[in-house]
Amino acid sequence: MRIDKNAPIGVFDSGIGGLTVAREIMRNLPSEKIVYFGDTARVPYGSKSRDTIIRYSRQIIRFLLSQEVKAIVIACNTASSFALDTVRKEFDLPILGVIDAGAIVAASATHNQRIGVIGTEGTISSRIHERFLKQLDPGLQVFGKACPLFCPLVEEGWLHDEITTHVAERYLSELKGKEIDTLILGCTHYPLIRSTIGAVMGEKVTLVNPAYETALELRDMLNKMNLTCEGEMQEDFPYRFFVSDLAEKFTEFANSILPYDVSVTQKIDIEKF
Amino acid sequence: MRIDKNAPIGVFDSGIGGLTVAREIMRNLPSEKIVYFGDTARVPYGSKSRDTIIRYSRQIIRFLLSQEVKAIVIACNTASSFALDTVRKEFDLPILGVIDAGAIVAASATHNQRIGVIGTEGTISSRIHERFLKQLDPGLQVFGKACPLFCPLVEEGWLHDEITTHVAERYLSELKGKEIDTLILGCTHYPLIRSTIGAVMGEKVTLVNPAYETALELRDMLNKMNLTCEGEMQEDFPYRFFVSDLAEKFTEFANSILPYDVSVTQKIDIEKF
Repeated sequence: MRIDKNAPIGVFDSGIGGLTVAREIMRNLPSEKIVYFGDTARVPYGSKSRDTIIRYSRQIIRFLLSQEVKAIVIACNTASSFALDTVRKEFDLPILGVIDAGAIVAASATHNQRIGVIGTEGTISSRIHERFLKQLDPGLQVFGKACPLFCPLVEEGWLHDEITTHVAERYLSELKGKEIDTLILGCTHYPLIRSTIGAVMGEKVTLVNPAYETALELRDMLNKMNLTCEGEMQEDFPYRFFVSDLAEKFTEFANSILPYDVSVTQKIDIEKF
Repeated sequence: MRIDKNAPIGVFDSGIGGLTVAREIMRNLPSEKIVYFGDTARVPYGSKSRDTIIRYSRQIIRFLLSQEVKAIVIACNTASSFALDTVRKEFDLPILGVIDAGAIVAASATHNQRIGVIGTEGTISSRIHERFLKQLDPGLQVFGKACPLFCPLVEEGWLHDEITTHVAERYLSELKGKEIDTLILGCTHYPLIRSTIGAVMGEKVTLVNPAYETALELRDMLNKMNLTCEGEMQEDFPYRFFVSDLAEKFTEFANSILPYDVSVTQKIDIEKF
């Protein structure tokens, strides 16, 4: 298979959270184009079965291939956890998830071998981060805590807000008692309230943002595979956004967190792919 | 069509919220059996299209018919809004929604013709309550306010909680400025934080709980149609619960809000109906 170096990167998520991953790719790989897909009609993924998530991921990858992407980042913890292995075998292009890069950095950052993970109920009960971390170092102790209100608080836009701080204090008090020195932000929404989480945990706890780590992993991979974009950027705005529903609401949210003005988000019928 | 008076009532919702409607039916129609279905695999409905919600509602009604129900209550504001008219034409049994009963009571309760409605973003932006209310009395002024954090707060179980009070104060301050004297709880989760909402709005505002009003409407309808259960209750626990995913979590929540111990919730594949 011949891959066009100047083709875009495909990034997908169950909704808007993956924009934090797209944002890190924009910052750290500024010469790359991006096609983003948010599955806003079928969000949330956290409460759906493994088979369903694999089916959804296949559809989205077929859509992204129709946009001629050269590589794909699954910017969703649930889909990374359930579908990555399967779709890697089925599709003939490089595919990255958001779980392994964060786990590798957390395992090397910890000094006391005690790592916390926060995420949605689905991600935490799947214990996917724990499995990855224990593969890297069986001596690690991993403490998970589901924080189901963080996503709706982020989607409400209450990013720097006393209510969010109050909720964070309650959720994180349990983890603070576990003497962790490293905390993985195991949901793509959480980097948007990173400062609140950091303030509550205290400066001795290293926060690992898998969005950032995944962007660096993508850069390394493109370099190694000789797939880094080389052409002059031809477009003023090399980013395209697609969703399965509620395009306007998505555009509004994207504009609130991206360092660019997104003027259009296209709605597509993902069930056709 | 011949209907068995002693058959159960079918009640369905996108998830757990409709349990507040089931609870009012249990309290106010204690001789009736209930079959409840919560579409926990496909929740939330508020962000899905009209066509999708109609398709889901048809599937669920076919499932409830397989359980031989004598009447159906759509205990979900979105499904009531999008699907009620369509499914009433398609199925040959009585079907009630949760929107009209609440609107009728609110229209007769208000003295100053100023009514507030709170609900999910989907329900509020659909302006369905406003349409119903203006049909009853074109002189009514209706003020809607979406409260997207109320559902996750209820699902987290933070029912009597300072964080919930704080969130309610923020959401409701706008409505307090509108001088409404009546407020419709336009989401089935909200009766569970009714006391918090009432405390914030003050005692001069009448709260209308469509769950309760719908139970009374159901009782009237069964009486008029001569469909009220007459037989001796044969079962110790005449309520059965079905979901499309996460049965254990549902059982836990049901036990926290119903005045009965629910021991089993059955998971079914709703896509087969």
